[in-house]
This record gives sequence, C-alpha cells and structure tokens, in this order.
Amino acid sequence: MSTQVQALYDFTGEPGTTEMSITCGELLTLINTEIGEGWWEGRNSKGETGLFPAAYVRKLAAEDSEHTKAAPAAPRYDQAADDWGDQQYSAGDNNYQRGTSQDDGWDDDWDDDTYSEIGPAHQNKAHHNQQAPLAPLPGMPINDYNHQIDETASNFGSTVGTVRKSKFAPSSKVSGESYLLGTLNVDVPDSDKVYIVQDEEGYVWSPLSHPYSVTVASPKKESKFKGIKSFIAYQLTPSFNNIQVSRRYKHFDWLHERLQEKFTLIPIPPLPDKQISGRYDEQLIERRRVQLQEFVDWMCRHPVLSKSEVWQHFLTCTDEKRWKAGKRQAERDNLLGLNYCISLVVPEKALLQSQVDHITEQCHTFVASMDTSVKAVGNMCIAQTKKFQGPYKTDCQKVGEAFYNLGNALSLDEGTIVSTSKLTSAIKLTGGAYIEIGRMYDEQPKYDWEPLGDKFHLYKGIVGSLPDALGNHKAAVQKKRECERLTAENKMEVAQLNEVLRRTDVISYALLAEINHFKAERTTDIKATMQKFLRQQITFYKKVVDKLEATLRQYDE
Amino acid sequence: MSTQVQALYDFTGEPGTTEMSITCGELLTLINTEIGEGWWEGRNSKGETGLFPAAYVRKLAAEDSEHTKAAPAAPRYDQAADDWGDQQYSAGDNNYQRGTSQDDGWDDDWDDDTYSEIGPAHQNKAHHNQQAPLAPLPGMPINDYNHQIDETASNFGSTVGTVRKSKFAPSSKVSGESYLLGTLNVDVPDSDKVYIVQDEEGYVWSPLSHPYSVTVASPKKESKFKGIKSFIAYQLTPSFNNIQVSRRYKHFDWLHERLQEKFTLIPIPPLPDKQISGRYDEQLIERRRVQLQEFVDWMCRHPVLSKSEVWQHFLTCTDEKRWKAGKRQAERDNLLGLNYCISLVVPEKALLQSQVDHITEQCHTFVASMDTSVKAVGNMCIAQTKKFQGPYKTDCQKVGEAFYNLGNALSLDEGTIVSTSKLTSAIKLTGGAYIEIGRMYDEQPKYDWEPLGDKFHLYKGIVGSLPDALGNHKAAVQKKRECERLTAENKMEVAQLNEVLRRTDVISYALLAEINHFKAERTTDIKATMQKFLRQQITFYKKVVDKLEATLRQYDE
Repeated sequence: MSTQVQALYDFTGEPGTTEMSITCGELLTLINTEIGEGWWEGRNSKGETGLFPAAYVRKLAAEDSEHTKAAPAAPRYDQAADDWGDQQYSAGDNNYQRGTSQDDGWDDDWDDDTYSEIGPAHQNKAHHNQQAPLAPLPGMPINDYNHQIDETASNFGSTVGTVRKSKFAPSSKVSGESYLLGTLNVDVPDSDKVYIVQDEEGYVWSPLSHPYSVTVASPKKESKFKGIKSFIAYQLTPSFNNIQVSRRYKHFDWLHERLQEKFTLIPIPPLPDKQISGRYDEQLIERRRVQLQEFVDWMCRHPVLSKSEVWQHFLTCTDEKRWKAGKRQAERDNLLGLNYCISLVVPEKALLQSQVDHITEQCHTFVASMDTSVKAVGNMCIAQTKKFQGPYKTDCQKVGEAFYNLGNALSLDEGTIVSTSKLTSAIKLTGGAYIEIGRMYDEQPKYDWEPLGDKFHLYKGIVGSLPDALGNHKAAVQKKRECERLTAENKMEVAQLNEVLRRTDVISYALLAEINHFKAERTTDIKATMQKFLRQQITFYKKVVDKLEATLRQYDE
Repeated sequence: MSTQVQALYDFTGEPGTTEMSITCGELLTLINTEIGEGWWEGRNSKGETGLFPAAYVRKLAAEDSEHTKAAPAAPRYDQAADDWGDQQYSAGDNNYQRGTSQDDGWDDDWDDDTYSEIGPAHQNKAHHNQQAPLAPLPGMPINDYNHQIDETASNFGSTVGTVRKSKFAPSSKVSGESYLLGTLNVDVPDSDKVYIVQDEEGYVWSPLSHPYSVTVASPKKESKFKGIKSFIAYQLTPSFNNIQVSRRYKHFDWLHERLQEKFTLIPIPPLPDKQISGRYDEQLIERRRVQLQEFVDWMCRHPVLSKSEVWQHFLTCTDEKRWKAGKRQAERDNLLGLNYCISLVVPEKALLQSQVDHITEQCHTFVASMDTSVKAVGNMCIAQTKKFQGPYKTDCQKVGEAFYNLGNALSLDEGTIVSTSKLTSAIKLTGGAYIEIGRMYDEQPKYDWEPLGDKFHLYKGIVGSLPDALGNHKAAVQKKRECERLTAENKMEVAQLNEVLRRTDVISYALLAEINHFKAERTTDIKATMQKFLRQQITFYKKVVDKLEATLRQYDE
C-alpha cells in the first residue's frame, strides 16, 4: 500500500496551509491521491505530511497502472476530470484560490467514471505556484488587454486568446488558419448551418425558431461505491421534452470545455465559482444551483449555443452508451475555433473593414469599462451580503438589547402604577423588534444581494471572455492584412486572397452578430435583474417599517 | 512677564497629549493661565512646554495679586468659575475627558465677570490624575454603591454622598446633623414651605399649582472686550412672563452648583456633556441647546425645583444689580443639604422604618440596573450616530457608485437601441438613489439617535445622582439608630430622640416623594421619547422605500 513518489520539481507549500514543500529528487510516501484539484497527500522522510501538486512528482512503485502511465508534468484528464475546484473560466479573474471549500460536498465529486480517459492534456493543473516550471499563471490581468491582443495576433494559428484559460491546451485542432486560408474543406450539412441576418439593429444571429428553457433543480447528494464516494447531482429538465436528466458538476465542466474550444468568437457563460460564499452546505449547494441555472438560461437564450450538438447531447442524453458515443463525437469535432465559421451563412455584402474596426474598437473600450464595473458590482454584492449578515445584523441586535435591558431595568421598579408596566412591556417589545430586524438583515441577502451577485458572476464571465473573442477576430484581420501584403508582393494569388477576404468577413459577421446578441441580451436581462433587485429591497424596507409601526402601536394601548 | 511657578506635587502628563509631567519642587515658567479647566501651560528648564494642573504649582513671582492669594491646593472659584469644560456632574460617569473641543466656542466662555469672587473652594479641579495628592477621583464607579453608602454613613455630618461630585467641597453649611438633632432653628416662612401629600400612588410632592415651561432658544455667539473674548449665550423665555433672559453656560453652571448644594435628596438634572458629539460648531452648539432644554424642562416639571428661589432668580432676573443681590443671597442660603428639610411639611403619620427600608432597597436595585441600561442606551445612540454617518452612509454610497459606474459602462455601448439608453439612464438613477440614501443616513441621526441620546444623557445624570440621595437618606437613618442606642444607654433624652425620629421621617418622606416623582416623570417622559424615536425611524425607512420605488419606476417607462 505504501506507494513511493519522487519529486520532479521544487514546490514551496504556502505556510499556514496543508501544503507541504518538496524538493526535486525527494522521496515521499503517498497517503492519499483522492484530494482532488490535482493535489496529492504524502509523507516525507521527516514524517511530515502535507499536500503537493500531483504533477510535481512521479510514482516509483506502481499500485495503479493508469497513474504510472500518466506523464507527470502533464497529468492526464483522469486525474484532472475529478477536479471540482478549478472553475476559473473568467479570463482576467486573478483571485484564483484553492482549497477554501474542500469539504463542502462540492469537491467530493471526484470519483472516476465514464469521462476518465477523455480530454486534452491539462497543462495548468496545480501550477498556480510561481515556481511551477511548465505552466503560465492562470490569472493574467484583464487590463493587459491590448498587450494580449498584440501577442495573440503574432501567435496566430495556435490557440490565440485562450492562453489565459487554465483548461485550454495547445492543440492543432483549435485553429483558424486552415479555415481562413481555405485549406479546410468540410461539407457542413444544411441542418448544421447557422445563419447571420440583418435586422434593424444590424447583423444578428438568425433568431431561435423554437425557444425553450431548462430548469436546474433539486441538487441532491448521491453516492457511489456503497457511499464511499459522494457527489452532488443537479436535475435538468428541458421544456421541449420534459425529460429530466441528472448531471454532475464534472459533466458541466466537460461541456463547458467543449463549448469553449468550439466557439472562440462567442463567450461561453461561466460555471459557478469555487469562491462562492455561503455559510453552510445547503446554502452553498443552492447558490451553485442558481449559478448553474444562470449558465443554462444564457445557453438556452443564445441562438447558436442553444442549438449546438454537444449542448443538446448534454441536455437530452439519458443512456450511458449513447452518452459515451456522443461524448467521443464531440471530442472528435474538428470544427473548433475559427474553423467553426465554415458552418456560418452570412449576407453576401462585403464588410467595410473601417466600419468593423470602428465597432470592435468601441467594443474594446466598452468591455474594459464593463469589466471593471461588473466586477465592482459583484464585489459590492459580496460585501453587502457580509455587511447585512455581519455588522448590520449585530448593530440592530445591539440596539434591541439596549432597549430590552432598559425595559427590564424599568420593570424592576414598576410598583403599582399601571402605565409603568405598560411602558416597560412596550420597551421590551421594541427591543425584540430590533432584534427581529437584525434577523431580517441576516436573511435578506438571499433575496437581493446574492441573486444580484449571481447575475453579475455570469456577466463577469461573459465580459471576461469577450477580449478573447475580439482577440481571435483581430488575429484573423491581421492574417488577412498579411495576405494582402503577400498578394501585393505577388506571393499570393488574387483568387486565394479573395477567398481569405470573404472568410475574414464571415468571421467579422460572426463577431458583429455576437456583439449585437450580447447587447440585446443584456439589455433585457439587466433590466429584469435590476427590477427584481429593487423590488426585493423595497419589500425589505417595507417590512422594517411594518415592524416598527407595529412596535409603535404598543405604546398607544 | 515671565512668572515662575514651583511644582507642589508630582504630576504625570498623559503621553501623546499636550500634558507635561512635572516633579515636586521643579521650577517652571508660566506661559498661559487661560487654558481653562484648571490647567496652566508652562515651560520647564529643558525648554519643553505643556499643560499641568494649576493646583499642582504655586506662583513664585506675583504678577496678579489675586492668583497669588489663592491657595494652590484648593484654587479659588475665580479660577474655576470660568471653566467651560468640567461639566461631569453625573456621578459614576468615569469617562472624564478633557480638551476634546477646546476651540469650539464652548470653552471660550471664560472671561471673568460678576461671579469671579463667589463659591466654595473647588477641591477636585484637575485632580483626575491618580497621583493627585489631595482629591478623590471624580469618576468613582457607580457599582460601588453599597460600599459608598457605608462610607458616607460613617462620615455623617460632612458632605455625605457628594464625595463624587467634583464641584462639591466639604463645608459646614452642607450638613444635616443640625437639622436632624434639632439644633437648627430657622423659621421658614409659609410661602417657602413645601408640602408632601399622599395620593393613590403614595407620598408625593404637592403638585405644582401653576405649571409653566421655559424655552431655551437661539444660542448666539456674543463677545466682550471688543471681540477678544467670545461666548455663547442662550435665550430663555419662561411661559409665565414671556420675558427673555440671556444666560451663558457659566450661569447654568453656577445655578447647578447651588441646586446640588441645596437639594441633596433630589437629583438635579445634568448640564450638557463636554464630550458631546457633533461635526461642526453649529451642530455642537445646537446639541448643547437641546441638552440645556432637557435640563430646563426637567426643572420646570419638578414641583420642588421649579419653585426654588435660586431657579426663579436665574429665570427672571434681568437687572445686573438685582442679579448680584440674588446671587449673594443664594450663596448665603444655609438651608442646604438635609437642613433644607426644615422647609418640608409632611403627613402626621409616623413611617414604618421597615417599609421605608424596603422601598429604598428596591430603589437601590433599580438604580443600579437602570444606571447600566441608561448608559448602554446612551452609548448605543452615540454608536448608531457614528454608524449612520460613517459606514452606513459610505456603504450606500459604494452601492450607488457601483451602479452608477455600471450605467456609465453600459452607456459606452448604447448604439442605436433605444431600450439600452433607457436602461443605462435607469441604472445611473439607481446609483444616484443609493448615493442619496447614503446622504439620508448621514442626516438621520439628528432626528432620532441624537435626541434619544440627549434624553438618555439626562437620565444618566438623574440616575447617577440617585445613589447620593439614597446615601444621604441612609446616613440619616444610621444617625437615627445611633440616637436610639444613645437613648437606650440613657445618654439621650427621649424627647430629643422623638424629635430625631420625626425629622428622620421628614427626610424619608422627602425621599419617598422624590422616588415617586421620578417614577411618574420617567413613565410619561420615556414613553413620549420612545414614540418620537420610533416615528422618526419609521419616517426614515419610509423615505428609503419611497426613494427606491421612484427608482424602480424608472425601469418601467
């Protein structure tokens, strides 16, 4: 049972945590490989135990052949698929933390199952430490937007703009060059074609002919292997068939990854944050459900995403065998990244580059400003929740206690005067009312600040992904200019250039459609969100007024 | 000009303040004797300058004959009468502070005038330091009540129970022994007699036949000596004559002292605190006005105090010459302390000592509990005021700013969609609404928490004085028991004992009447206070609701 591992790199554990520092070459005894998030637990020669990144060590004695086959510097998905913590999709979000809720049931969902052999290699696992020799840091700042655009432009052909996503790995599949240069020759069946049309607002995705919704409900703790492994499963019910499917977070995670690979011009809504706040298991699980519902709602309302094959498979598949087949098919999909644009049918009209540039420039400015605002609102929701549940509640209760004790003190000398005892009881009731108002403050965030925060978590993810979409588009435009230069230098045929120009336009059409979709979507959605929030705030302060009015009446009787 | 002083005692200045430590025998050069509050400023041989208690030094070179005549350990009233800072009358209040608002106009009121030669010696001036060799600390804890009672009982004949009042000094005038033993022979004119009668609640002060009120209004800054010296004058208008008189704080101060000397069984309402909170001069002055109004209201409603000669003189005198005469008369009054009881006319019935003991015991318990509660409510009002004006306001404004910036960010990408620009303006208005609500939080305390705090400042003073009244009564009862023992030992005549018993009953009647007065008074007053407070709170939260509802409507249009 005592599997030995050898450290491949130095790792400095963060002091005051369960992490343990290891030194390259050091031998350790493996204690637990089921920590999740790419961490293992081991004991060093001094007898100290602690966690270290699984990717930093290699096994010496095989106890599990699957694990020993895994390349240590790039752990296979079978290690990483179990990861419930690494959900930091929102680009530019650099408050990457780990292990804050290791025992809330969210991280338990790690048992191996049908997905254990799939997926691209994960390079960024557990490499959040600066000493990590192989991987970039996951939290590249959003404000580096322009810098990043330049970078991605010069790296065109690799996974431009996705460098910041910890679950993205370089892959020749994720490319746009073959599409742009016309070397990609795929026949897209009509049923898979996606149309961009012009309406009064500009170019838009052809609207959904059969809109539908999906409810995410009843998160429940399920278990496997006689209760040894437990996980949370969410019940999804699409409105178009009313057939419930059960999905775990890892299924969402896998789906999210497929969507991000495929739609590089369309921001994919984020999954719940690991750092979600909540005071007990049930509350945490419920907030994750709400955030998953936000994810699902956004997907359903998106004319392209809502029709995508992998999403439909995720929503409807109830059969294990079909599931595996669909999964393999999704993973073999080679219309990823800009190559996906081959599925698009756009207006004939050639776009004016200067006009496109103007719109994308404006979008840049907007996104930078929006990113700051959306994060500020999100942080404000977290701060207000803490204040309602902390100082506001406590302050009210202190007021209540002061009045209550005053009533008590006065009642010590009530004597025979009737009006005195009426007064003391009214004052005690006043005390009780403020203590109750304190409780109302404690309860309130789940009706206003938390839902508002959940909505802005979504927007943070969407807005955080937009720079990638813009970057991918900008890279294509750079490539087009390169081709124009080549043609000017007689190094490229005019016919081929024309093909490049047409395809660049398709990419531009897609970006414009997406920009318009986001604008229309957020206009409706944020309006509804703000209205709901304000109604809840009004209800709250009205309840305070009611409570105080009832208290005041105690003095009149 | 360089007056030298010599330190008579060691004094340790508080670090981090303008205080300077001095050592017994040390020579200092006097810089400023007009600091107020019994403090002088000087320079030591090292060239350091700082403040020290005037009472701790003696002058070596006379520059002002009046000052050199003053005994250093007991500075004369001419130094202390100008003191605007030492207003800590509430016994047991040990948060004695000094110099926090030295330049708010309150402390400017120090110029010498008609009062400069009056008054008993002040022993406790500036002796708040533990090393002070002569004086007890002003802030003896209230919880030492029983201990204090025992002490005062054994010290009967001196100024029992007033040891904690910094402006009280031992004086043969302030005694009760001569009254109790029947050696005081004064003919009280009928017009000065005060009656105690029995009604359904027990023994009470005969009610006021002509109730009246007095408004304290228009505090204004006046000046003397061509503007060199400025002070705040308050305009008092009694309802019985409607003739306005102008009174400065020092007049109140002098009055308060007279009342405390004379009525040792009746708590005198407190004057404004030095530590009153406020953010600017006008606000400070207004709050002091409110607290003076509380003082005046309590005086007017008290059947005994409202009729007292010194108070009537204070309320009505407009003539300088008559003022001085009345002042001298008040200072010559020898019916002080328990001797005042010779003015009382009580029911014939002898009181049952056990019954009196029961009532006073209950009152002890009540007062101890009430003291804690009243202080807690007072502190809570201060804390809530700070919270409303600090974090609550700031938090609202942060919420407002987050929304406003969100609206701004969204407006960067408004484009041609009309609904978008409506949304962004609604969101910006939402931001504005929360910023406005923040301002409402800032304003609110002056409508609820501050008036509540002012009322509880009054109660803190009253409740803090009750132990003294109880102590004075208890001391009389002890003396009575001593006389009973002496009679049993045939050392005192039965006739004299009977006189002592009768007079002790008068004292008990007075205490019972005062206990009942306080009960009836507070029942009405606290009820009205709580109702007013709750109405203001309700108004506030209703305004918040209105603001939010108006904001919500912006989204519908």
